[in-house]
This record gives sequence, structure tokens and C-alpha cells, in this order.
Amino acid sequence: MAMTHTLHTQDPAPVERPIRVTVWNEFRHEKTDPRVAAIYPHGIHGAIARHLQTQPGIEVATATLDEPEHGLPPARLDRTDVLIWWGHQAHEAVADQVVDRVVGRVLAGMGLVALHSAHLSRPFVRLMGTSCMLRWREAGERERIWVVEPGHPIAAGLDECIEIEHAEMYGERFDIPAPDTLVFLSWFQGGEVFRSGCCFHRGAGKIFYFRPGHEIYPIYHHLQVLRVIANAVRWAAPVAAGPVLFGRVEPREPLG
Amino acid sequence: MAMTHTLHTQDPAPVERPIRVTVWNEFRHEKTDPRVAAIYPHGIHGAIARHLQTQPGIEVATATLDEPEHGLPPARLDRTDVLIWWGHQAHEAVADQVVDRVVGRVLAGMGLVALHSAHLSRPFVRLMGTSCMLRWREAGERERIWVVEPGHPIAAGLDECIEIEHAEMYGERFDIPAPDTLVFLSWFQGGEVFRSGCCFHRGAGKIFYFRPGHEIYPIYHHLQVLRVIANAVRWAAPVAAGPVLFGRVEPREPLG
Amino acid sequence: MAMTHTLHTQDPAPVERPIRVTVWNEFRHEKTDPRVAAIYPHGIHGAIARHLQTQPGIEVATATLDEPEHGLPPARLDRTDVLIWWGHQAHEAVADQVVDRVVGRVLAGMGLVALHSAHLSRPFVRLMGTSCMLRWREAGERERIWVVEPGHPIAAGLDECIEIEHAEMYGERFDIPAPDTLVFLSWFQGGEVFRSGCCFHRGAGKIFYFRPGHEIYPIYHHLQVLRVIANAVRWAAPVAAGPVLFGRVEPREPLG
Amino acid sequence: MAMTHTLHTQDPAPVERPIRVTVWNEFRHEKTDPRVAAIYPHGIHGAIARHLQTQPGIEVATATLDEPEHGLPPARLDRTDVLIWWGHQAHEAVADQVVDRVVGRVLAGMGLVALHSAHLSRPFVRLMGTSCMLRWREAGERERIWVVEPGHPIAAGLDECIEIEHAEMYGERFDIPAPDTLVFLSWFQGGEVFRSGCCFHRGAGKIFYFRPGHEIYPIYHHLQVLRVIANAVRWAAPVAAGPVLFGRVEPREPLG
Repeated sequence: MAMTHTLHTQDPAPVERPIRVTVWNEFRHEKTDPRVAAIYPHGIHGAIARHLQTQPGIEVATATLDEPEHGLPPARLDRTDVLIWWGHQAHEAVADQVVDRVVGRVLAGMGLVALHSAHLSRPFVRLMGTSCMLRWREAGERERIWVVEPGHPIAAGLDECIEIEHAEMYGERFDIPAPDTLVFLSWFQGGEVFRSGCCFHRGAGKIFYFRPGHEIYPIYHHLQVLRVIANAVRWAAPVAAGPVLFGRVEPREPLG
Repeated sequence: MAMTHTLHTQDPAPVERPIRVTVWNEFRHEKTDPRVAAIYPHGIHGAIARHLQTQPGIEVATATLDEPEHGLPPARLDRTDVLIWWGHQAHEAVADQVVDRVVGRVLAGMGLVALHSAHLSRPFVRLMGTSCMLRWREAGERERIWVVEPGHPIAAGLDECIEIEHAEMYGERFDIPAPDTLVFLSWFQGGEVFRSGCCFHRGAGKIFYFRPGHEIYPIYHHLQVLRVIANAVRWAAPVAAGPVLFGRVEPREPLG
Repeated sequence: MAMTHTLHTQDPAPVERPIRVTVWNEFRHEKTDPRVAAIYPHGIHGAIARHLQTQPGIEVATATLDEPEHGLPPARLDRTDVLIWWGHQAHEAVADQVVDRVVGRVLAGMGLVALHSAHLSRPFVRLMGTSCMLRWREAGERERIWVVEPGHPIAAGLDECIEIEHAEMYGERFDIPAPDTLVFLSWFQGGEVFRSGCCFHRGAGKIFYFRPGHEIYPIYHHLQVLRVIANAVRWAAPVAAGPVLFGRVEPREPLG
Repeated sequence: MAMTHTLHTQDPAPVERPIRVTVWNEFRHEKTDPRVAAIYPHGIHGAIARHLQTQPGIEVATATLDEPEHGLPPARLDRTDVLIWWGHQAHEAVADQVVDRVVGRVLAGMGLVALHSAHLSRPFVRLMGTSCMLRWREAGERERIWVVEPGHPIAAGLDECIEIEHAEMYGERFDIPAPDTLVFLSWFQGGEVFRSGCCFHRGAGKIFYFRPGHEIYPIYHHLQVLRVIANAVRWAAPVAAGPVLFGRVEPREPLG
């Protein structure tokens, strides 16, 4: 380890200002598939942003893949407390530089909410360190998302489970590190289970992976799903931490 | 399992009302030892309560061992979102009925902040299921409490470590279950280490064990220690959960 | 904390001798219900013991509720590295003294494998510190037990999931502390999920809770279920630890 | 997710054959610094390998940075159950292809024991997903490594702590994900603490990070340090898992 290094942590949301959320969307399905456009006329990011805007103490912006720097230049991340990420078919189109930037911001304290197929998004995979592979099936089957940690703030306001009538299936083995806290487990009609609400601390940042979502099924119009996303934003918001110092240090006690 | 049972979770703090804290103190040292009375003229509970009263969105009451029902009748717990507990020499004087009541409330969602020698308090030991024993020494030595999870809300606003000039030593092995999240680690001048900030989910409730404290050393006048206690209160406050149902249930899907 | 105390840890299984298992069974259903007797003519304990006896490096004894001291006098526990526990209808018949003894041994290093309805057994509930309640249904439905931690020794030799054609359902919310490691998740035909393979460290001991089992369904003749129990025995066996010391200690470094 | 994929898990060590360990060493200090050569005349890898060779059921090979493919061609990893890694000044010299290979093998079940400055080795950092930075100081101060999980197999045979008279200091904040199990905590004379024995499950593999070590201080001649490394090898050895399947799957239950 060659030199002293200071990690300047994310400027936290003070009590007196809103949490600033950026909803990032690949935004390609919506432009090429009329079925998706019919369900999400303003994009998946638009549907999520519109809901979050109704929530007290949350301020929302959006960004998409085909904007310059994918809509995530440093200036945008400077004004982002929590980044929500939805991607599916174009993970590989996200530039190295933006992946590095997002990962660096999360380690410095920015919250990240990774939705559904973002399990294979480049920032999420990098932060997990594993393959993040899973089993899947598109058959429009029933999903039931059970609360396993009812005292967790991300479960606030929910009933014992959320029912989704038509969902893509994601099944175990889900190749992630064991989450620091497991909040939800999914049941699928076809016979599988899945860890569908997973909290991780990484660096000074907090990450929530939330399984529900799809480009065809209208999952992001489901009120309980939207409630979880809003809860996750509040949980993942950075706290007022000082800079975290690394590198060579002097002793605080006499040696010898 | 003989019958259906519903756990009525604690009524949570809605956004629009303060978190209601009850600071419980054994309150015996202060009455018998003039050195303790000099440092805590209104009791340890008084010192902690006075600080919390200055915090926005927190409402404070106190309760002590020698009040009827130890100051914790059901009506008091009905108005308690988070219970702070300090006990030391009279753990065994706490009545079974009150222990049962406190444990039941925590499982139903009430927060519990156990301070210092409350590691051997009856409610904490019951909720842990282990001996909660440790090593100790009273020699007025230096303690340094390091933040190991800088993104955790209980570490908000702290520097990299808290220094306490004169402290009682608590050392590992601390016989607790591994905490769900480890926030602080203590260093002691005499050669020991200790897991001094430990988060636990138990039932629908959240528990934070925080090591610093003593009846002679003026630990609860230390601003960073008080900051941690206030942070812990916000973290441990119940969330708006529905009742958690247990017992026999009907299938949600056709069988056969 | 009044006095110095040494926890004499369980004498571990040295490499050169077998792991000594005691299979404990309530053993009442088998005596009163001919359907149970037909499936388990030598009792549930007999079925499990017979399998373990075929495993290299494992030595087996049994004990039942209606023996003196429930078959668990100190001399029996002195020769027990891992205790397997099955109880269902008579949890309350287990004497305080035996509960204390078993809990003390686990904290001192003895392994405990709690099967199925032992989630409400007195030693398990005491060691967890929570209600250990859950939802249930007896409808002979299908269960599929998925491996979520394929590198864990308790999952050794299994396929991706174990299928059980007719099972009692146990569903979340299961009111336990989050396990230190979650190895299995169950899917049920009627729509529920369950954390069905849970590892806990408590004191110097290791505990594995394993959901499958029933007095009517022939679960303990299922080879993969038996394989998990044998794996759990090896995982839970005590390690060669020195005594764990608690209480007042002298400084190891000069103070001053 | 474009296609079905099977992760062929590592061929496990069956009961009847030894655990095959490869000790990897950067092996540069020893060739350029006579002080290091004096302490480790056969390299750090040689010292560790020599000890492991004396252990029953363990078979040892070594590999070093300056061999072709850094001594880690596929054929070598095919015969490696557990890889021990020591690197310090030349982390960046490890080729991408070898990093990918090692990471892939760990996810498929190979054990990894990362020693001391290997906290910044490329495979370890990739598998953690965080910066793995820490604080440090080279002042030859005293370290005391406390056992916090006495029932864990990696702590087998140890006393309550290991004392190291002269050590490099590593201090918190250590920027890793919270370990699945925390086995050791270090105390340092100069005032810092450190999580110095950390277990992680990643993919089907197990990783143990162990702090002690240095090129100048004779840490790898310390018998208790060597004992921990041997324990870690046994803990990290792969289990007999079937292949883990990912990708598109058919339903196991009728849909509709």
C-alpha cells in the first residue's frame, strides 16, 4: 500500500433537505416494443419517478442510457443521494468509466437500489464480486413476496406478503453474497423460491436489491411495489459521515 | 402448535408524531454513593433524558426500579417506542412479570437500547439467549471506540473514533450471538478489544447494545456518546408494520 | 458482574475418535398412534439413529422423554458431542432442570440439531430468545427444499433441491433471529416459503435448525433428509477450544 | 440474461483423499532483501508449505508470481482445493487472465486463504467488490489477536488470544463487506483495532482473510499463526456439491 488516501464520503442528506433520487433506466424496450410503451408511456423511469415525486421529502431526477455519459456525469451524481437502476438487455453498453464512477460513489456513501434484471447490471455485479446469476422463466406466473423481517424499515406499511398476478420467475440459487439483511422471500407458482429483498452495506454506501419488475408486466404500477421502492430510498440515503481515512497513520498511544 | 395466535405489533411512530422514549435506570448507585450523585445529580436517566429532550422529534419520559412495577406498567410501555435500559447491581431485583412484559414488547416492535452493564440485565439476556458474560476491569483506562460501519445511521455525525479518557474495560470473549450489524469496536489501553456497538433484530423489534457508560466516570456527559444514543433511538424506533400472524392458515393456492 | 467465572467448554471430538451423537425423541406419538408406529416402529429416534450408525466416524445413542431425567442425565451429556432433538406435543413436559442443562451444554460447545416441530422445544426457544412461532398447515402438500448456499458443508452431496411429496407446511414469518448462515429455503404448494435450514453460533456451540419432519409422513426415511442430518452432525460437532474465561482480569499492558 | 449456463463446481475433496493446497507467493522481497531471505530462506511460501506438509490429510504445492502464468495454469488449479495467497508489492503484476481464473475457481468452490497484505491482491479485491483499503503503520508494535467466535473450527486449539511481539499495524476502517463470520479481532499497541479473521462465502467457494504476516517479522514461524492457517485450509476445502445450474428453466409445477 503505497500512499495515504482519503475517501471523501458522499455529502449526506441533512435533515432539512429532501433526499435526491436519480432514477436510471436503460430505456430501450420502451422505444422498440409497443407493448412496453403502452404500459410505460414515459418509460419505466418515468413511472417510478412519478410515484416518488408524490412522497414527502424526496426529490427526483431521471437519467437514461442513451444520454451523454448515460445521463450520469459527475455533476448529476453530485446531486444524487440514492440511485435507482433498471437495465435489462444492454448491460454491456454501459461504459467502463460510468461503471467506475457509480461504484466509487456507492463506496463513498451513495445509496443504490437495483431493480429486477439489474442483478446483472455492471455496477451491481462489480459491487457484489460474484456472478449474480440465477434461474429464470417468463411464463406470467404468480409470485408472492413474503416479509421475513417485519421490523425492517423497508417492510414498513406492508401486509404479510405482496401478491403479483403475472411475473417473470427468478429462482435460487441466486449467486450473491449472503445479504447483510434479508427482508423478502419470493414464492413462485412454478415451484421456485428467491431471496427477493436483500440489503448490503458496501463501503460507506447501502445497496438494496429488489426483485419485482418487468418490461411487459405492469409491476411498477403496483402500489405495494412502489411503496417498497420509496422505503428503500429512505433506508439507502447516506448518513452524515465524516471522511473515511485510509493509508499510513501515526500511533495514538506511545510505543515502546 | 395448538392454536392460532396473532402478535399485535407495537403501534409505530407515524411520521407526524415524535418518537417516544422511556429512559429506564436502576437508580440505586446515585442514592447511595455521593460520587455518583455528584456526577449524575438527576440520575443517569436524568442525564440521558435531558440530552434527548433537546433533539428534534424525540419525546422523553423516565422510569426507575423502585417505582411501582419498576415504572414500567403496561400504560407506560403503550407510550414507549424505544426503551433505554441502564442497570448494574440490581438486575435480579427486576420482577419476572416486568421482564416478560419488556421482552414481549420488543418482540412486538418496541426498540431497546441496552447500555453498558445492561449486558447482564434480564430483558437483554433473555432476548439474546446466551450468557452475555464478558471480561472486565475497573482501572480508569483509556478506551477508543472505532467506527467499523461508517454508512450505518447509528454512526452518523461521528469522527473515525470516540476517545474516552477513563473507562471501565469490557473485553472479549463477549458471549452474545453475532450481531446482525457490528457498528463499533473498542480498543482498551490494557490490551483488550470489544464489540461495543451491536445491532440485533429480534421479533419485530430492534435492539442496540452500546458499551460505554459507568456510574463513576462521566460517560453520559460525553457529547459523542450522547450522539450515538440519539442515533440509536431513531434507528430502533418501530416501523409501521401490520400485525404478524402465526398459527394455522389456509392454503393460498389450490392443492391437489 | 460479581465474580470471576470460567466456562468449561465441551470436551471436543479429537480427530481420532468418533463424533458421539445422542438422538432425543419425545417418543409419545409412536406409542399412542398406530399410524406413527407403523412408519416408525422403533420411534423417530430409532429411524434417525439407525441411519447415523451407518455413517463413518459417528457413534449413536438415543434418549427419550419418559426415561428418568428424560434420558439426559449429566453422564449422558458428558458423552454427547451433538444432540439431535425431536419434540412435538409435549414440549412443556420437559423439566426446567433438563432445559437448563441442555442450554448450558450448548453454550459450552455441544452441537444441537433441532428438527421440525422442535422449533417450539424449550431448549431451542431459550437459545433463540424469540417466540419461534410460525404459520402451519397439515394438508399433505408438496415441499421443495432449495439449496441457497451450495458451498456449505451441510449441503454436501445434495442436488439443487430436495423434493418431499407430502409434508406439513411451515410458513414465514418464522420468528427467529436471522440465522448466521441460511442454507435452505422451502417452497410449499399452498403458496408459502420458509427458511428451513438455519445455522446459529450460540456460546461455543453450534445449532442447526432443519424443518423437514413429521410423525405421519415418512420424512425420516428420505435419504436426502437423512444426508442433511448427518452433514449437520459433522458441522455441529465441537471444536477443540480451550476454556472461555469471563470475569475480572488483570491488564496485559501497563496502564499509566 | 441471454443463455443457459452451468457452473461446474470444483471437484471436491472426497473423504478418502487429502486436501490439496497450493501456496502462492509473490516471492520478490525474498530475492531482493537479505533480511527477508534470512527469515524465509525458502520464501514465505516455503515456510507455510513446510508446516502444512506436517499436517495429516493435507498435500501441498507452491506457485510464485514469476513462474509462467504465475504458476497457476489451469492444470495446477485443477489440482488445488485451497489456494493460499501472499502478495505485497506486485499486486498489479498479476495478469488479468490469472485473476479471472482464480476468481472463477473460487466461485466454483475452490477455497481461498488471503494472508496479510493480500487484502489488496487483485483476486481478493474482485471477490469483495469494495476497496479493501485500511490504515497501517510499520512500527514493530505488539498485536494481540482475540478469539471472538470460540466455537468456530478456525479457532480450534487456540487460547483466548494470540500474542505477536512485533507486527505491522492494520487498523479500521477496513473497507470490506461485513464478513459472514468474524472469528478474530486484533488489538494494537498504538491504539487501533482490526477485524483480523474474516470468513466469506462467495459463489460455491469459501474465503478466509487472515491479517497476521509480514516479510520482515517472522510471523509465519509462529506456531499459533500456522495453526490458524491449517485450520482455515480445512474449513475452506470444497464440499461435494453438484453443479449449480443457472439460466432458463421449465416449471416444476403446473401453471394455469
